[in-house]
Amino acid sequence: MVEITDMLGERSITRADGRKVDELRPVRITRHFTDAPEGSVLIECGNTRVMCTATFTAGVPRWRKDSGLGWVTAEYAMLPRATAERTDRESVRGKIGGRTHEISRLIGRCLRGVVDMKALGENMIQIDCDVLQADGGTRTASVTGAYVALVDALDWAEKHHHIRSAKKVLTDCVSAVSVGVISGTPMLDLPYVEDSAAMTDMNVAMTGSGAFIELQGTAEHRPFTRDELGTLLDLAEKGNKELQAAQREALAKD
Amino acid sequence: MVEITDMLGERSITRADGRKVDELRPVRITRHFTDAPEGSVLIECGNTRVMCTATFTAGVPRWRKDSGLGWVTAEYAMLPRATAERTDRESVRGKIGGRTHEISRLIGRCLRGVVDMKALGENMIQIDCDVLQADGGTRTASVTGAYVALVDALDWAEKHHHIRSAKKVLTDCVSAVSVGVISGTPMLDLPYVEDSAAMTDMNVAMTGSGAFIELQGTAEHRPFTRDELGTLLDLAEKGNKELQAAQREALAKD
Amino acid sequence: MVEITDMLGERSITRADGRKVDELRPVRITRHFTDAPEGSVLIECGNTRVMCTATFTAGVPRWRKDSGLGWVTAEYAMLPRATAERTDRESVRGKIGGRTHEISRLIGRCLRGVVDMKALGENMIQIDCDVLQADGGTRTASVTGAYVALVDALDWAEKHHHIRSAKKVLTDCVSAVSVGVISGTPMLDLPYVEDSAAMTDMNVAMTGSGAFIELQGTAEHRPFTRDELGTLLDLAEKGNKELQAAQREALAKD
Amino acid sequence: MVEITDMLGERSITRADGRKVDELRPVRITRHFTDAPEGSVLIECGNTRVMCTATFTAGVPRWRKDSGLGWVTAEYAMLPRATAERTDRESVRGKIGGRTHEISRLIGRCLRGVVDMKALGENMIQIDCDVLQADGGTRTASVTGAYVALVDALDWAEKHHHIRSAKKVLTDCVSAVSVGVISGTPMLDLPYVEDSAAMTDMNVAMTGSGAFIELQGTAEHRPFTRDELGTLLDLAEKGNKELQAAQREALAKD
Amino acid sequence: MVEITDMLGERSITRADGRKVDELRPVRITRHFTDAPEGSVLIECGNTRVMCTATFTAGVPRWRKDSGLGWVTAEYAMLPRATAERTDRESVRGKIGGRTHEISRLIGRCLRGVVDMKALGENMIQIDCDVLQADGGTRTASVTGAYVALVDALDWAEKHHHIRSAKKVLTDCVSAVSVGVISGTPMLDLPYVEDSAAMTDMNVAMTGSGAFIELQGTAEHRPFTRDELGTLLDLAEKGNKELQAAQREALAKD
Amino acid sequence: MVEITDMLGERSITRADGRKVDELRPVRITRHFTDAPEGSVLIECGNTRVMCTATFTAGVPRWRKDSGLGWVTAEYAMLPRATAERTDRESVRGKIGGRTHEISRLIGRCLRGVVDMKALGENMIQIDCDVLQADGGTRTASVTGAYVALVDALDWAEKHHHIRSAKKVLTDCVSAVSVGVISGTPMLDLPYVEDSAAMTDMNVAMTGSGAFIELQGTAEHRPFTRDELGTLLDLAEKGNKELQAAQREALAKD
Repeated sequence: MVEITDMLGERSITRADGRKVDELRPVRITRHFTDAPEGSVLIECGNTRVMCTATFTAGVPRWRKDSGLGWVTAEYAMLPRATAERTDRESVRGKIGGRTHEISRLIGRCLRGVVDMKALGENMIQIDCDVLQADGGTRTASVTGAYVALVDALDWAEKHHHIRSAKKVLTDCVSAVSVGVISGTPMLDLPYVEDSAAMTDMNVAMTGSGAFIELQGTAEHRPFTRDELGTLLDLAEKGNKELQAAQREALAKD
Repeated sequence: MVEITDMLGERSITRADGRKVDELRPVRITRHFTDAPEGSVLIECGNTRVMCTATFTAGVPRWRKDSGLGWVTAEYAMLPRATAERTDRESVRGKIGGRTHEISRLIGRCLRGVVDMKALGENMIQIDCDVLQADGGTRTASVTGAYVALVDALDWAEKHHHIRSAKKVLTDCVSAVSVGVISGTPMLDLPYVEDSAAMTDMNVAMTGSGAFIELQGTAEHRPFTRDELGTLLDLAEKGNKELQAAQREALAKD
Repeated sequence: MVEITDMLGERSITRADGRKVDELRPVRITRHFTDAPEGSVLIECGNTRVMCTATFTAGVPRWRKDSGLGWVTAEYAMLPRATAERTDRESVRGKIGGRTHEISRLIGRCLRGVVDMKALGENMIQIDCDVLQADGGTRTASVTGAYVALVDALDWAEKHHHIRSAKKVLTDCVSAVSVGVISGTPMLDLPYVEDSAAMTDMNVAMTGSGAFIELQGTAEHRPFTRDELGTLLDLAEKGNKELQAAQREALAKD
Repeated sequence: MVEITDMLGERSITRADGRKVDELRPVRITRHFTDAPEGSVLIECGNTRVMCTATFTAGVPRWRKDSGLGWVTAEYAMLPRATAERTDRESVRGKIGGRTHEISRLIGRCLRGVVDMKALGENMIQIDCDVLQADGGTRTASVTGAYVALVDALDWAEKHHHIRSAKKVLTDCVSAVSVGVISGTPMLDLPYVEDSAAMTDMNVAMTGSGAFIELQGTAEHRPFTRDELGTLLDLAEKGNKELQAAQREALAKD
Repeated sequence: MVEITDMLGERSITRADGRKVDELRPVRITRHFTDAPEGSVLIECGNTRVMCTATFTAGVPRWRKDSGLGWVTAEYAMLPRATAERTDRESVRGKIGGRTHEISRLIGRCLRGVVDMKALGENMIQIDCDVLQADGGTRTASVTGAYVALVDALDWAEKHHHIRSAKKVLTDCVSAVSVGVISGTPMLDLPYVEDSAAMTDMNVAMTGSGAFIELQGTAEHRPFTRDELGTLLDLAEKGNKELQAAQREALAKD
Repeated sequence: MVEITDMLGERSITRADGRKVDELRPVRITRHFTDAPEGSVLIECGNTRVMCTATFTAGVPRWRKDSGLGWVTAEYAMLPRATAERTDRESVRGKIGGRTHEISRLIGRCLRGVVDMKALGENMIQIDCDVLQADGGTRTASVTGAYVALVDALDWAEKHHHIRSAKKVLTDCVSAVSVGVISGTPMLDLPYVEDSAAMTDMNVAMTGSGAFIELQGTAEHRPFTRDELGTLLDLAEKGNKELQAAQREALAKD
């Protein structure tokens, strides 16, 4: 990936945390983080820490009954002091905010994008992503961690004879990473300090085969050109490949 | 745009409504649709009809006070029988659904993407997009219509001496369109019947200068490759150029 | 109706919009305003514009099952910029206000007052009245427009063999109009400017046969005598007759 | 009032509780029912029992500030077992139903109809009507009882020098009663068993001078003619006069 | 009980209302307070007045079905002017506060503590405790009153052949009382003025046999020692015995 | 503590996890668990794991202003898969359940019981206890862990000159533990399997000086005698002493 850096002519740029523009923050994936869930993963991307659990339940919601198809859904939330300033609980406010809704839906779509609902049969998997500490990229870390929890839950389901084969349910793996343009320079995997300064911000979820499942680019502060998009997608591809290697490594243990 | 069709080798494809793959549905933009709002637009894209109003208010929300900056926000909603089956009102259910939140936020970001908040000063513009009839592409029609309502509201504010110059507030124009892959073929501006069959679905908001403000691609049903992405963005560019022509034409009247 | 004016000795009174005290605002009823609903009507009474849809559903709510009887219900809402100042959405506030509840219930009772629930059978009709522009009399315009949408929905149900005969379901027609005392003078069909100045305000729903279904008089600002009541009811009778003529005319088309 | 009975030719009609058609149920008004409120009244109309309290607070809500005017508002609620079948608490359901809203607003308007807001000054009175036992006519009993609580609260305010003169605040007294047509016969003051059988149901709030403040007639089950309206209003007038006598008597004590 | 007073050396202490430290406020229990509920009790402990109703319903909630067991649950609420300052209704606020939840749960547990769910069979009893006037000890008065309403509801159920024997359902009686330490002195049955000054506050629910069902001691303002606890429990035992005598006396009537 | 075991004659009792009846589960307290909060603690009691954070904010809520006093409050919540079966999020349900309210209030009172509000000055501390894994005793673990987070937050506040002395704010330390009677045997520190089988269940919060701050005993399934209470309090005292030793040890590090 030296090439990207070359292409960008950004060799000399120093990021606040000393990383190169095309470098991921350190990733750590801990499986079996808690005991109760069928899949339970703690993912750490730099200082961002998300607990991802996967709950397997036989049966599907009413609107899905007798379809022969399964269902995968996700909920995302932040603990009140995941952030520098305390955020009020959404349970206390009595309603879920738009950002939370948006991210929950994104995570759900990413995972459904690699699940064969017929192979899953009439079973449901509920993903819960709870951010213990937030330092940018919580939604993409959630996708990456949730995939590992999903694999563990499917393996559990296979072992307990709820499904025939976990492998057949999964059509590919999926991970996600953020990229963005900071002061004119495209960069990979933005921590909070960069994210809040970004002119353009993009979250990219990709499969192991290198195809896109979700692409969400936002340029509230300065539109981005098609060329910039190209560079951002190159960075995202590099990042996702490395994240998928980390997923594989974590899943290889035990 | 004959080129795109060529490139796709899709000359012979007939869409349910007789359009070519790179053809927009008929667009109609009616300004001054109602009397009370500072900007009031009815936009019709095929059978999709959205009423977009822009409310200008002197002053900004508390968190924005003494910043010297303005604010633009948006709310989207569907009337209960905009759809084939009646949808329960979110006011009756007592909470706003995730989809509504997601779309409201998208519209707000698109418009903020072409507004110079300093030039707007400490004033607020609230966009309301209410779908009277839904036939696919309601969120992109909302963006396209809301921009016209925004221009009218800024002109009103200039005339009433709330702002110095409407033109200086707007850094560019913005429109949005949906594209998607149906049965393997990339297509422009999907009505409901195509949208629900799409393997990949993308909403693209672009400025008049051809840059991206929002890019939201979803591939719950089949990931898309970078090549497909390229074709979809070509289609979106063509569609947005035509929508921006329709905006200009509407704004030229009266 | 020269008589009423005579009786009131109000020949010389000029209303802000130039109408006589016993004169309705221009009424326009557009059927098939949107495509999806079984009945879809736009009613315009002066500057007041309400979209009324009627949704026919086979089956009734649980509490009504196995009664052999149908059900008719109504929901009323205002778009945020139907009014001069923007009103917050009730979906955003998370609850429905008292005024909305009150009006929804009024509309429902008016329509049920002309429906034979046995003839309707175990089917449900949901009326939705959404105010696009409000200039007084939105609740009465809703009743008048909703009746036309109801007729269309019943005709649709007859054509689709859900009910035997639309005519047998309807025992009469119904319309509603507002009357009030402004500066001591009883007047028919109050726009917002008169409504807010009214000492007494009354909404009167009547059948084609001239009987009352709903009578709601309010005199927060000055009680009204039985004589004044008499004059107000005369005005309301005249107004409702004319509104019912407009309904008949609209229903005669196509 | 023998005349009404004559007019109706209903001498021989026996109501379930033995009353004549133009006869009120026994009324009992207990002042100082509880100690804390500035006004606290228990009103009993037959088996209907409502606790009405009036809370005086110096100052008005924000929207009323610096107007020099006071404000009067009301809230109505039923205890869960006021009725034959237990009703779920609205606090538990998390929202207030339409019926409750409708009645709360009615009570508020009735009391405001006899209050001179200028004489009240920037002070607020909150009326609470809680139904301990419901046997028809709870909303009209609430109005009648609340008026007495209001008088007590104003006297308290005068004694504590919040207002100059309680008498000047009240422009008149107000009471309310229900009337209805049961099996073709107009009757006064309907208990639940009659109310639920009524073809037409009307609530009439009148001042001591015999003028109307609120008139709410509903004929979901059979429209009523102008003649019937006349008879119903005669009955309501008789009932309200007697209720106002009971109010005076209660207020004369202590 | 002279002994406790001796032990405390508090002979000379005069409480604001003239009671001795180990003396209950006057208790009055009125059965059949309202007609509709299966059990309806007004309990007065000094100025605290609570209306307790017990609703008997054949059948249990879904989660309890086919268990052969019954269910007893309770809801507590305060009328807005039960207190010196008006409290907003929880129905209006749209949610139930923590204090209300806490007390409702306490009452439910106390009653379930003396009910044999098998003997009750698949039937449900819902207790409603509504505070008409609050002067301290509303939760303990609720428990004491609710027990009497429960007995009446069970007798009703036996008479109507819903259960075999009311006596077999009840394993014991239950009452509750508050105790606390005020300025260093343990006291029985605290009115509001003492309650708000208490350093330690304890609610004690006991059976007729003298065992504890609920014990809730709170010492936000000064921790209490084990010795103090002993004295408080002595006081509570004395109080509960007297309250149970009052319950027996009330139940002996009619 | 050999004595307690002797007294109980329970030497031979084997608990499911091999502990003696008066033995705590292993306790582990990790400070600085996350970076953002002023105090952040992970407490593990056996398999129960709770993340406790303390947020220090200068200033107090409005109702406390100009009192010269500080405020301490707490919120408790469970992650959805802290339990064997997934629990729906309270944010999704739109309201907080009674159990959550009850526990949040308990934690707040316990901590306020050792805080000198004058020494804290007009500053606020918000405690958040989020259960990552639940195996009984989550509320008592929350209290024990929250105290450590509170100390860290006060030290932070002293270092940042918000308060003069953290030590003066704290009047003592506080911890809490559960005790209960299982099959007739009093036991210390109940895991879920014992808790759900307990006839009597008690949570006891004590200060370092051995006094009680909170005492909550519940005997829904079998009342407990005063003798049993004595034994339970002996066990609780032993447990709390050991927990306070663990707190001291954790606070001694770094």
